[in-house]
Amino acid sequence: MANLRVHMQRCFSPLALRAYFAEFVSTFLFVFTAVGSTVSARMLTPDATSDVASLVAAAIAQAFGLFAAVFIAADVSGGHINPAVTFAFAIGGHIAVPSAIFYWASQMLGSTFACLVVHYISAGQAVPTTRIAVQMTGFGAAILEGVLTFMLVYTVHVTGDPHGCGGGRKGPAATALGALVVGAVTGACVLAAGSLTGASMNPARSFGPAVVSGDYKNQAVYWVGPMVGAVVAALVHQNLVFPAVPEPPPSNESRHGSVETVVV
Amino acid sequence: MANLRVHMQRCFSPLALRAYFAEFVSTFLFVFTAVGSTVSARMLTPDATSDVASLVAAAIAQAFGLFAAVFIAADVSGGHINPAVTFAFAIGGHIAVPSAIFYWASQMLGSTFACLVVHYISAGQAVPTTRIAVQMTGFGAAILEGVLTFMLVYTVHVTGDPHGCGGGRKGPAATALGALVVGAVTGACVLAAGSLTGASMNPARSFGPAVVSGDYKNQAVYWVGPMVGAVVAALVHQNLVFPAVPEPPPSNESRHGSVETVVV
Amino acid sequence: MANLRVHMQRCFSPLALRAYFAEFVSTFLFVFTAVGSTVSARMLTPDATSDVASLVAAAIAQAFGLFAAVFIAADVSGGHINPAVTFAFAIGGHIAVPSAIFYWASQMLGSTFACLVVHYISAGQAVPTTRIAVQMTGFGAAILEGVLTFMLVYTVHVTGDPHGCGGGRKGPAATALGALVVGAVTGACVLAAGSLTGASMNPARSFGPAVVSGDYKNQAVYWVGPMVGAVVAALVHQNLVFPAVPEPPPSNESRHGSVETVVV
Amino acid sequence: MANLRVHMQRCFSPLALRAYFAEFVSTFLFVFTAVGSTVSARMLTPDATSDVASLVAAAIAQAFGLFAAVFIAADVSGGHINPAVTFAFAIGGHIAVPSAIFYWASQMLGSTFACLVVHYISAGQAVPTTRIAVQMTGFGAAILEGVLTFMLVYTVHVTGDPHGCGGGRKGPAATALGALVVGAVTGACVLAAGSLTGASMNPARSFGPAVVSGDYKNQAVYWVGPMVGAVVAALVHQNLVFPAVPEPPPSNESRHGSVETVVV
Repeated sequence: MANLRVHMQRCFSPLALRAYFAEFVSTFLFVFTAVGSTVSARMLTPDATSDVASLVAAAIAQAFGLFAAVFIAADVSGGHINPAVTFAFAIGGHIAVPSAIFYWASQMLGSTFACLVVHYISAGQAVPTTRIAVQMTGFGAAILEGVLTFMLVYTVHVTGDPHGCGGGRKGPAATALGALVVGAVTGACVLAAGSLTGASMNPARSFGPAVVSGDYKNQAVYWVGPMVGAVVAALVHQNLVFPAVPEPPPSNESRHGSVETVVV
Repeated sequence: MANLRVHMQRCFSPLALRAYFAEFVSTFLFVFTAVGSTVSARMLTPDATSDVASLVAAAIAQAFGLFAAVFIAADVSGGHINPAVTFAFAIGGHIAVPSAIFYWASQMLGSTFACLVVHYISAGQAVPTTRIAVQMTGFGAAILEGVLTFMLVYTVHVTGDPHGCGGGRKGPAATALGALVVGAVTGACVLAAGSLTGASMNPARSFGPAVVSGDYKNQAVYWVGPMVGAVVAALVHQNLVFPAVPEPPPSNESRHGSVETVVV
Repeated sequence: MANLRVHMQRCFSPLALRAYFAEFVSTFLFVFTAVGSTVSARMLTPDATSDVASLVAAAIAQAFGLFAAVFIAADVSGGHINPAVTFAFAIGGHIAVPSAIFYWASQMLGSTFACLVVHYISAGQAVPTTRIAVQMTGFGAAILEGVLTFMLVYTVHVTGDPHGCGGGRKGPAATALGALVVGAVTGACVLAAGSLTGASMNPARSFGPAVVSGDYKNQAVYWVGPMVGAVVAALVHQNLVFPAVPEPPPSNESRHGSVETVVV
Repeated sequence: MANLRVHMQRCFSPLALRAYFAEFVSTFLFVFTAVGSTVSARMLTPDATSDVASLVAAAIAQAFGLFAAVFIAADVSGGHINPAVTFAFAIGGHIAVPSAIFYWASQMLGSTFACLVVHYISAGQAVPTTRIAVQMTGFGAAILEGVLTFMLVYTVHVTGDPHGCGGGRKGPAATALGALVVGAVTGACVLAAGSLTGASMNPARSFGPAVVSGDYKNQAVYWVGPMVGAVVAALVHQNLVFPAVPEPPPSNESRHGSVETVVV
């Protein structure tokens, strides 16, 4: 009981509130560029959904946008910008569950707010939701989103791993380059799967447009797939590829420390 | 009175003159690539304004161009390249008001000169101004420019913050990566809002084409929106997300030092 | 005999198994984005093979995808992702032959698995193989693939050379930037030769689609060309441009150490 | 006389020969991607010269290609890849004139060899030369090439300046990022002026296609413009913006040391 109160106090410490705000701002930025680029392309060509140049535009917008979004939040909240990433870090013990819930709320609020702004400023254009190609089943789409999210979250774990490329206490350059590679893998995945499921890999990125457009079709696909993919990525990374200590069986504690705990 | 004279002397010191020149060159480079890429694309397809590939070209040109522009000025003038950025730094106390005014002048001269060169070398092609989509009101456009500029200037502040990603005395790699992320967020914003307001986010970038084409329509939108967005970003960054000292109320002095003062 | 047993034990040490797994995951990621982007573009325009925007999409997908793939494997396996790269390192003495064989197997399995997933999730779309333009002979195609792979593998050697740009014990930022430049040169080569041979430069990247589509036509081109190009690049780099010690004739041992041995 | 012999001996030292070879390889790589991407795009759309997507393809190919080309030569030859850059460094006293001449020869050979390979492997496709838009005069084109090259060479000087962003003895990360920014500014300039003069900014890049196609029209434009622009950039950078010592009049010696002398 006292434990819970301590947890709650931590959840509302200035540092924690700052982290939620950073997640809100960064998710806003990312979803704004993701949704805005689709709206902008659609305004230029009526049949933009069947245009390769629009796919390129969406991919570059999301690669550059996520790079900036992760960069500006990296030192405040760890730069999750994605409920699936936060979920994987919670499973791995790097963020406490109460904090993770506030992260989720901040991310979904940021996404929804971004979609509202896009809807308002684009003179009432419909906000585009992530959609599944007609040939695909919901199950296949969830598998695809899971595979894509596995690649994204695995990359996120490598960028944050003190044993990995990032090296223990990373310098600012390594942090920035970690954000860049996360943006790059997102751009590559959008190009690879954009015309199949929209390559969301991020429940918040699918949630905002659904709320604002009122079209919740296939929401389950964009939650279950990414969540499962993210957890598998976290488990594979922490236990198989980068266990805390190479040879001897790693102690539980040191493994928990392998990705930096951002908010306790 | 003596104070003013000291200020004026500083404004004309060799270091200060060098900073103005760097702002001039960098704004020239950025506006040249921004305006030039639109002209180049329009020469290839008569209806380039309704082509997604032209939007991609404009976004990449501005992302790469601003990356280089900020990079080459970073150590001389701080790499503002944007009156809204300079305004935000002046409000935050990181640049003295007289210096800021010379920065503004250098930026607007650089932009105008770039548009003149584009006009001359492109055999008299009309210099494209930033324009508002027909469906939008001026108010909506100003809001959008404000939101976009908020994201840009917030990112600029993170790149320059000793408590942020950049870390105190940043090394050359961190400075270069800061310039890269500023370019990336600009590219993402151009893709997200290019067909709505042109995604200027920069009064100088809108001012030059207006002067050379003689079309000052909606100039107010491109000044008020970015200025307000930039100031909000500076206030949010310095007071909410990255106050100089995490827990205790920060002293005024240390907060002023949180982004490096480039010219005093 | 005992020597062989020691070699085999090394080949199945936890560190070695981890390296194979990392090669598998990274090759999966790279081939998934390479093949997926072509499928995605083809779904949008029926004649995507004759569309420049599709070429740009493929180039960006491969540049970003390989950047991420090399980055996430760099500290575990050295980030080869390419049998030709592994072959060149084996010739240069930087990886033992038995290990190299397991690297090859991991890379080809990763590529094949990626193509299976793309085939399954895209609702049975044909997996696109790398193909030779009708005007070209197989010999010309092999020469081209050899030249392209020379440029790729030469760049890979510079990123890993302690005497080169990377500097001895590279920091995490240099490792990440090495991955970025490898991705960039790949993207440039895809744009330069994508409509001639598909710019594979990587036998595994051509092997997976061949297996899944059952079309092994011209496989020899995509093995012989890259292998020869890679070996020439390794020899030129180690003996001509970056010999271990600049002036005196380098000892065999120190030359062998010039690219870090990842798995012995 | 003895002086000349010493100079000549230096010009044929192993280090110097290595530098020429590095310039040859890197110029080959850059021109191969620049010319190849145009050929590849033209094979896909007969009217590729009037296609914005082809412009984007050329810009990305040159940005990524030059990034890699500068990166792989940086520690051997300084990564000029451009007779105009070498000329500017010779004027500035950072490379001896005899060495500069061998640099030039290596660059032009590399470019010509790249065009020969493209011509051969593309089954006899015409190698595209850099051309001037019909509306432009040769004088206007030279001015434009001069302005573009000014921006390129100014950026090159900042990346190499110990007082600039790069900082004295730059680490490998800063060297790589310097190469990245040089690639980026090139990509931006190609987008800005590609449909006007081809945005060569590099006499070698225009020389190779001219030799192989036998079409020397406007060669003077691509030599005079870039050379003048490069020299102006060097003078502005060294005397105006980054004099070796900020306040007191810089000694001649220290100014000469402000960009690293690569080959003496």
